[in-house]
Amino acid sequence: MIVYGDIASGNCYKIKLLLSFLKRPHQWHHVDILGGECQQPEFKQLNPNGKIPLLQLASGETLSESNAILNYLAQGTSWLPEEPWLRAKVLQWQFFEQYSHEPYIAVARYIAVYLGLPDERRAEYESKQEGGHKALHVMEQQLMQSDFLVGPCATIADISLYGYTHVAAEGGFDLSGYPAIVRWLQRMTQLPDYIPMQDNEL
Amino acid sequence: MIVYGDIASGNCYKIKLLLSFLKRPHQWHHVDILGGECQQPEFKQLNPNGKIPLLQLASGETLSESNAILNYLAQGTSWLPEEPWLRAKVLQWQFFEQYSHEPYIAVARYIAVYLGLPDERRAEYESKQEGGHKALHVMEQQLMQSDFLVGPCATIADISLYGYTHVAAEGGFDLSGYPAIVRWLQRMTQLPDYIPMQDNEL
Ligand SMILES: N[C@@H](CCC(=O)N[C@@H](CS)C(=O)NCC(=O)O)C(=O)O
Ligand SMILES: N[C@@H](CCC(=O)N[C@@H](CS)C(=O)NCC(=O)O)C(=O)O
Repeated sequence: MIVYGDIASGNCYKIKLLLSFLKRPHQWHHVDILGGECQQPEFKQLNPNGKIPLLQLASGETLSESNAILNYLAQGTSWLPEEPWLRAKVLQWQFFEQYSHEPYIAVARYIAVYLGLPDERRAEYESKQEGGHKALHVMEQQLMQSDFLVGPCATIADISLYGYTHVAAEGGFDLSGYPAIVRWLQRMTQLPDYIPMQDNEL
Repeated sequence: MIVYGDIASGNCYKIKLLLSFLKRPHQWHHVDILGGECQQPEFKQLNPNGKIPLLQLASGETLSESNAILNYLAQGTSWLPEEPWLRAKVLQWQFFEQYSHEPYIAVARYIAVYLGLPDERRAEYESKQEGGHKALHVMEQQLMQSDFLVGPCATIADISLYGYTHVAAEGGFDLSGYPAIVRWLQRMTQLPDYIPMQDNEL
């Protein structure tokens, strides 16, 4: 099993974190986003959409989309409940993440951390704040009611949302107004086999 | 079972279409998007993220995110394969839809059809063209190889992508350069119990 990714990207870190929780051996193939490696013909043969993370099985078959990969790897484990309604709730949070959270929080962080907040993207960076806070507010309401997003136990929904929420400050989002989120972030780091996000340099 | 939605929205039509394929009786509760009904306190009690479609069970419990609702309703039917890899592929296409397709094609159509392409949103409308065509290109490559997105049979992945692809022209996307997509759209309309998207007036 090979994972193509960049460990400093939240979407890729999600996979690394689940694999660590599951103690699953794997090969990590670093892909250089800023160097344009995702858009090279060789990579687009593996993923025509030109994005990481990408999972490749020993058979050569590939699977893209971080949250689809999490669902595939987590099945049969406690990270993905069997019960249909809970499973649907996991997906609800994962689609929320991709549509209402990542495009604001991850993109603001990308502009700040990867691109160094250049002047010509400052307006875009600032335009991300409102949507990001809206998403954090939705999470806060849930986490005031349950320890994890889909009840008392951690699921891949938590991994999906943890990916960029725990580095939201790097995108300019102050989490001090979200005490339930702050406690949940803390809870995540205490799970056995938790690993932090790393810099590419490491 | 109640579905809160607007039948002219592709995200809501996805649910209507699956329910028709499955012949599942349900109550449809129209929500007025432009009138701001999604952002009213009464609706946000049902969905704190303030979006339709929303599924409500007889128990009162609610599920948001169109693709999560499709997964919930389709389980145990031929629309959602049991085999783990195929199931992961269905999710891959659904996350692709929400991240790389809908934000371009649906948003361009929204600006044109719902808002009447006002001058102040023309630049945004035009900025959606490139990403939309990129997504169509990814679909075209798959549909040159298989009749449906995840193999020889239709799944909820096809419903997810059909929602906005079949009205892409309304967002300014000319599909004539995508012959495999055009054939697939045709194939979808020939499935038993297919229903077209409707206008709100109907
Ligand atoms: N919806 C995708 C998003 C993946 C994504 O946006 N990946 C970025 C890095 S975080 C990427 O590959 N960018 C490279 C490029 O666009 O060239 C997922 O969840 O996997
Ligand atoms: N990711 C959501 C997107 C839903 C969505 O964007 N719904 C729009 C209508 S198509 C909406 O409810 N807009 C109302 C509003 O934002 O006030 C899904 O797939 O269900």
